[in-house]
Amino acid sequence: MIQHILEYAGIAVLAASGAVVGVRKGFDLFGIAVLAVLTGIGGNVMRDVLLGAFPPASLQHWAPVTVCFVAAVLTTAFAKLVIKLSQLVLVLDAIGMGFFATTGAAISVDHGASYFAAALLGMVSAIAGTIMRDIVAREVPMVMGPDDMYAAPAMLGAVVYVAIDSVGSQWLGVAVGSIVATLLRLAAITFHWRLPTGPRELHVNPATVEDRQCAAASQLRP
Amino acid sequence: MIQHILEYAGIAVLAASGAVVGVRKGFDLFGIAVLAVLTGIGGNVMRDVLLGAFPPASLQHWAPVTVCFVAAVLTTAFAKLVIKLSQLVLVLDAIGMGFFATTGAAISVDHGASYFAAALLGMVSAIAGTIMRDIVAREVPMVMGPDDMYAAPAMLGAVVYVAIDSVGSQWLGVAVGSIVATLLRLAAITFHWRLPTGPRELHVNPATVEDRQCAAASQLRP
Amino acid sequence: MIQHILEYAGIAVLAASGAVVGVRKGFDLFGIAVLAVLTGIGGNVMRDVLLGAFPPASLQHWAPVTVCFVAAVLTTAFAKLVIKLSQLVLVLDAIGMGFFATTGAAISVDHGASYFAAALLGMVSAIAGTIMRDIVAREVPMVMGPDDMYAAPAMLGAVVYVAIDSVGSQWLGVAVGSIVATLLRLAAITFHWRLPTGPRELHVNPATVEDRQCAAASQLRP
Repeated sequence: MIQHILEYAGIAVLAASGAVVGVRKGFDLFGIAVLAVLTGIGGNVMRDVLLGAFPPASLQHWAPVTVCFVAAVLTTAFAKLVIKLSQLVLVLDAIGMGFFATTGAAISVDHGASYFAAALLGMVSAIAGTIMRDIVAREVPMVMGPDDMYAAPAMLGAVVYVAIDSVGSQWLGVAVGSIVATLLRLAAITFHWRLPTGPRELHVNPATVEDRQCAAASQLRP
Repeated sequence: MIQHILEYAGIAVLAASGAVVGVRKGFDLFGIAVLAVLTGIGGNVMRDVLLGAFPPASLQHWAPVTVCFVAAVLTTAFAKLVIKLSQLVLVLDAIGMGFFATTGAAISVDHGASYFAAALLGMVSAIAGTIMRDIVAREVPMVMGPDDMYAAPAMLGAVVYVAIDSVGSQWLGVAVGSIVATLLRLAAITFHWRLPTGPRELHVNPATVEDRQCAAASQLRP
Repeated sequence: MIQHILEYAGIAVLAASGAVVGVRKGFDLFGIAVLAVLTGIGGNVMRDVLLGAFPPASLQHWAPVTVCFVAAVLTTAFAKLVIKLSQLVLVLDAIGMGFFATTGAAISVDHGASYFAAALLGMVSAIAGTIMRDIVAREVPMVMGPDDMYAAPAMLGAVVYVAIDSVGSQWLGVAVGSIVATLLRLAAITFHWRLPTGPRELHVNPATVEDRQCAAASQLRP
């Protein structure tokens, strides 16, 4: 029961984050809905494709996509409120991320993946939807950039799951792995933890260039 | 017979649209050909992957890819003419889109997809190639933006197919669904129908920024 | 034996090229690692997905991903050296590319793909990781642009493999096809061979626009 609540809550939060990006980019309602679906179930679908589980459960049953549609409609209708509540969305997203990372790993083990592959596919379940969202919206994927620690907590949660599964129970692994991933993510947000990047002088920083361009443009066109 | 003509005509038109983008972006001939193949058969390949039908029929047989290559060569050779005939290309594309949406749904039902999944996968067949084209060309996917109603007619066509299939014949579903999707698409083009977007004040409109940048640049470099 | 050395060397070189892009884009260490994995094994994973070989061998066993991680760490630590040795990286990459194109085709034949599909999937094995790298990094894919001949040698290598396989031995096909692809790639680099593009006056050249924008920005902000 709590498993289903967490699953659909996670899908809804991811879908809402996709819908916000769609609203921001000026997509039409259907584009917003497609982006919400891609973000909400993209990770699970990619995991199922890589496992050879066809058709992917998130497409075969009506509930996950319908949750994404509802989340897209509500997010578009109350877009300003959702943007204002972004702190809450971040917390819910951290919970959903941890849950997807560990259940993704568990489902992978059940489908015959090695523990090594299961840890990878758990992370894929948690982050692939967000990566697809950013690719479609023509952004550098947030989860790979330096501003946020997202993929690392997902990986850690999946690894914790695998470690516990290999010596004991799946459910304990899901519970502990989810909590570890979520807590690490929340701590990273709260304390602004960041992983190091490569040597700074080698960066080709597009943000800076764009900032300069906007400044240049606004100076010329008041 | 008419089924095969429609299928290859649809692939050829999609491939030509991919080739035009490749020409515009300054890709070399091989890049143009790859983009034409991706656009022409990308939707069908993605549908087959999501259905678990391996290897995808569009790759296993020589005809679909060869049609894409021929379309790429002709489009590149007569690029100005193709761009001039863009109205005709839009009409042919609308016919191909409707046909792919309904046959994609029919093939999905045949492979054991639920009606719900079949409607989704019909839409995927019709729009995924175009989305891939725009992602590779570093554009915001046309089908998701506000300037055009493309995904919604595809979805409607697939839904009409599923509704008719569930009470009767596949062939009637394909025929009626295709016509509905194509007519809605053509009407949307003719009458500039658009779906609403989210609140306009939330848009981060990249086009405007770029326009300003170009203006700034051209003022400085005459 | 030499087969495994070539395979892991090819994965390592591809992963290093992905890591360099990640360093340049200012990704954090985990983002760099994910990009290295995507570039290093992305082509092989996509080939396995299109063949229906699940879970993809590159994910199921620990070695390929681990090689990517090690390559990512070393590349980040010695990023300046790797960039300085870019000539050597190009040569190693050409060898890996040829090897992946032919072994990818061979594996496809073994999995029941037609010779036609095998030639395509050999090319996919060789170039898909690089295309994914560039899409995630928000670049127009290098292999499709006009500045480099990359996909065409991969295609030729896969075709040579298929031609030899159809009349004789797989191993001869892999050896000859790999050498042909690698030599053509190296010749294209050395002699600046390029394939033609579409009519130049139709290009919408983003590079030029960006150059102008940077120039404009730097003039305004010294």
